Amino acid sequence: MQILVVGGNGTLGKAVVARLRELGHSVISGGRHDADVYVDLADPESIKNMYTDLPELDHVISTAGQTTAKALVDMQPEDNMLSVQSKLLGQINLVIVGQHYLKDGGSFTLTTGIKKDDPIPGGTSAAMANGGVTAFVKSAAIDLPRGLRINAISPNVVDVSFEKLKSQFLGYTPVSITDVAEAFVKSVVGKQTGQEYQIY
Amino acid sequence: MQILVVGGNGTLGKAVVARLRELGHSVISGGRHDADVYVDLADPESIKNMYTDLPELDHVISTAGQTTAKALVDMQPEDNMLSVQSKLLGQINLVIVGQHYLKDGGSFTLTTGIKKDDPIPGGTSAAMANGGVTAFVKSAAIDLPRGLRINAISPNVVDVSFEKLKSQFLGYTPVSITDVAEAFVKSVVGKQTGQEYQIY
Repeated sequence: MQILVVGGNGTLGKAVVARLRELGHSVISGGRHDADVYVDLADPESIKNMYTDLPELDHVISTAGQTTAKALVDMQPEDNMLSVQSKLLGQINLVIVGQHYLKDGGSFTLTTGIKKDDPIPGGTSAAMANGGVTAFVKSAAIDLPRGLRINAISPNVVDVSFEKLKSQFLGYTPVSITDVAEAFVKSVVGKQTGQEYQIY
Repeated sequence: MQILVVGGNGTLGKAVVARLRELGHSVISGGRHDADVYVDLADPESIKNMYTDLPELDHVISTAGQTTAKALVDMQPEDNMLSVQSKLLGQINLVIVGQHYLKDGGSFTLTTGIKKDDPIPGGTSAAMANGGVTAFVKSAAIDLPRGLRINAISPNVVDVSFEKLKSQFLGYTPVSITDVAEAFVKSVVGKQTGQEYQIY
């Protein structure tokens, strides 16, 4: 069983890759830097080239996607586009393109986040991207071919990032990155589809 | 109290305009055709020009926004962009730009839809746009300046459109367009913010 983790060199991605390898799975990391395979989520052609090079892929995890952190009152329409191109469409295009490459019964697991459910100042653009991904996942689950499944993981701020982010997340209780990584395992090895696992 | 209804010439928009006028409000319709003021939601510059011409505006309603209806298996990344540019970013840019023009204590009311909560085949792109708008609304509510409020209305398929759409919505019980229009009134004249009124 072969699993691709796009964003596998990030904080969360590394934890997911490590846990899946610990469980004995064959894991490939994808990303723009420090990854086994190159992919730029903002470019559908790059996504297609990546899949073409991975003919034995069963499962795709994305822990990738950038967002804009900016107070709404200071935001211009163009500021919002990083979240749209990367976190929203980047992850969605992993599915739109990837549905034709994964093996029967494979799965997609995307990453959203708590900001859409429990908003923070300056989190509007990220919330929008997260909300779009969540709704896409629920709807795509009834439309995917060949028994392919899809879920999302929505983490709170994680323990290992809390020190850096705590001024944005005052009053939030961080969650264990180990628990978040475990939710990705559940999505891949389980049979559920169309779900969002909220680790809050 | 001046209210702009973008999409005021559509099926739902007409019902909202009629109901607000019946209640004695001053209503302006906006859109690309058959409207009091011209606006193309896909063009932020056009949105800005519209607001510049409406210095007395208190409330903005959007019943506008196009989406792509296509089975996921037939969808290409570019097919998804109509929903992104129109229903998602068009409505969001009405807020990002409009926050600087509305009078203190004004409001935005956007339109989402049932497909994100109760998916139908071919509804993935619309669901994505709806989910993004819902999350944006919840988050923007805590970030808007000058007492501005924001809500979304999420209608089921409405009675007057059901005959045309029933092959897509088999098993759905349509809701009264009058009830949906009333939810827009509640958003505008009420004091709530960050809510989505689901008329299912």
